[in-house]
Amino acid sequence: MTVSRPIIERLVIIGMGLIGGSLARALRVGGAVGEIIGVGRNCDALAKAVDWGVIDSYCQDSERAVAGADLVVIATPVGTMEEIFQRISGALNPVTTITDVGSVKAAIVTAAQAALGPHFPRFVPGHPIAGTERSGVAASEPDLFRDRHVILTPVVETAVDAVALVREMWECSGARVTEMTATLHDRVLGATSHLPHILAYTLVDFLAGREDNELLFKFAAGGFYDFTRIASSDPTMWRDICVSNKAVIAAALSAYRDTLDRALDALQRGDGEQLEALFANAKAARDRHSKHFRR
Amino acid sequence: MTVSRPIIERLVIIGMGLIGGSLARALRVGGAVGEIIGVGRNCDALAKAVDWGVIDSYCQDSERAVAGADLVVIATPVGTMEEIFQRISGALNPVTTITDVGSVKAAIVTAAQAALGPHFPRFVPGHPIAGTERSGVAASEPDLFRDRHVILTPVVETAVDAVALVREMWECSGARVTEMTATLHDRVLGATSHLPHILAYTLVDFLAGREDNELLFKFAAGGFYDFTRIASSDPTMWRDICVSNKAVIAAALSAYRDTLDRALDALQRGDGEQLEALFANAKAARDRHSKHFRR
Repeated sequence: MTVSRPIIERLVIIGMGLIGGSLARALRVGGAVGEIIGVGRNCDALAKAVDWGVIDSYCQDSERAVAGADLVVIATPVGTMEEIFQRISGALNPVTTITDVGSVKAAIVTAAQAALGPHFPRFVPGHPIAGTERSGVAASEPDLFRDRHVILTPVVETAVDAVALVREMWECSGARVTEMTATLHDRVLGATSHLPHILAYTLVDFLAGREDNELLFKFAAGGFYDFTRIASSDPTMWRDICVSNKAVIAAALSAYRDTLDRALDALQRGDGEQLEALFANAKAARDRHSKHFRR
Repeated sequence: MTVSRPIIERLVIIGMGLIGGSLARALRVGGAVGEIIGVGRNCDALAKAVDWGVIDSYCQDSERAVAGADLVVIATPVGTMEEIFQRISGALNPVTTITDVGSVKAAIVTAAQAALGPHFPRFVPGHPIAGTERSGVAASEPDLFRDRHVILTPVVETAVDAVALVREMWECSGARVTEMTATLHDRVLGATSHLPHILAYTLVDFLAGREDNELLFKFAAGGFYDFTRIASSDPTMWRDICVSNKAVIAAALSAYRDTLDRALDALQRGDGEQLEALFANAKAARDRHSKHFRR
């Protein structure tokens, strides 16, 4: 979507990784922003982002960077957000809108409420459901959010105009915006994103620990590499997500284990009929839903 | 690889699905065969395969088809092979070589030994590690085996020239051939193929059974659809594989569950350090090995 004039004059993105970089690129293509300032710890990455035209300038001091910003997007690992809220809280202009891109929402809302104080109504919790197993601004792309879902989880206190601005920003990047509660978000993503990451990581860890691991990986097929692609995701990022949503993920994993135990039992009994019914049910569900998923 | 004259005058492929069809296409491109006869139950699929030039002719009677064949490739689901061995056994020419493409090997060797009798030394158990979640001759492609591994699991009785012929056939399709014991094959594939299929099928089955399943699938991301791609595989084929290799898969699944239980425990305790170590170990192993996997 190309807009006639910027909807955001001064955008500050804290965290210039895959998501922060892709958002900057998308908004630039759409002409939605005046100026983009990147904030991060890695000076080299920030300088490169300026060279590549992803951002206009950078600053390593988030407190200074947010002064005078219309919108601040926090795109750092979930575990760092509380500290960032605390650091920027005192420097925020009363009309500055703040949003984040974290993969968990309830824990972030709680942290924002405690740290942002009077600014909390201008904080719009958000999560773009997009990404790849790659990390860093070098992997960023302007189309990363095209046709992808973005979930916003505002609370009763959240200012309506702040939600509208964040929604508009994401729509300019090509995304489809949905609102739901933070609790529902965490339950949905806990099941379809966090749980599969645990399964992929634990499977590779399990196989890598076997004595015959070299042989296993040598003869692994494309199906295996697709299945475990998400196990190449950033471990720190996923540690933070798991810890922040631990109760929901643990409950989903426990419940999933019951299905797994039934499959193990059917295997041990050689019950082909039960296995086939399970496989057919899974195939039907996946085929039905994957039709609607656009690559 | 293009050969100057056919290495196989008369090739019979029983089962004209993804693997059988792709093998026929690959050998035709390479000029490795004189005549290809397809055998199957589905007349429409066979007629289409002739129309598309995949095979020269077809026959629904496997017993008649194999008479005078130089090489018979059995490319049907694992569970049907015993019956096919029994049916063709009496019609085989003493010099005809037989091979299969089944994803399990020990059970098939046992069935072949019982059913083929004096022809058993000409049976070369084989498994091309290639395929997609799609099925049928319409999904077949001549490059399916290019740079893929094919594992042959001959036994002491297996005729050396029969192994050489089957090896040459696969090399003509672009594959890399390795020999190992059937037991080792089943252990390796049980871990990297059969176990992930169980995990993908059970995860989708589990999610599809939840009350909020529509919402779950709606907001599932690309990572989820890659992770569960193998859950769109043919349920009958995978029932057969699981039943035929049940002891190995059950043992692998039990051992994997211990890793999963440790992850669940770390989650419940909120032990980020342990989770991160597990994730980092998995990522390192996958990144190291996936470099060598050619798409």
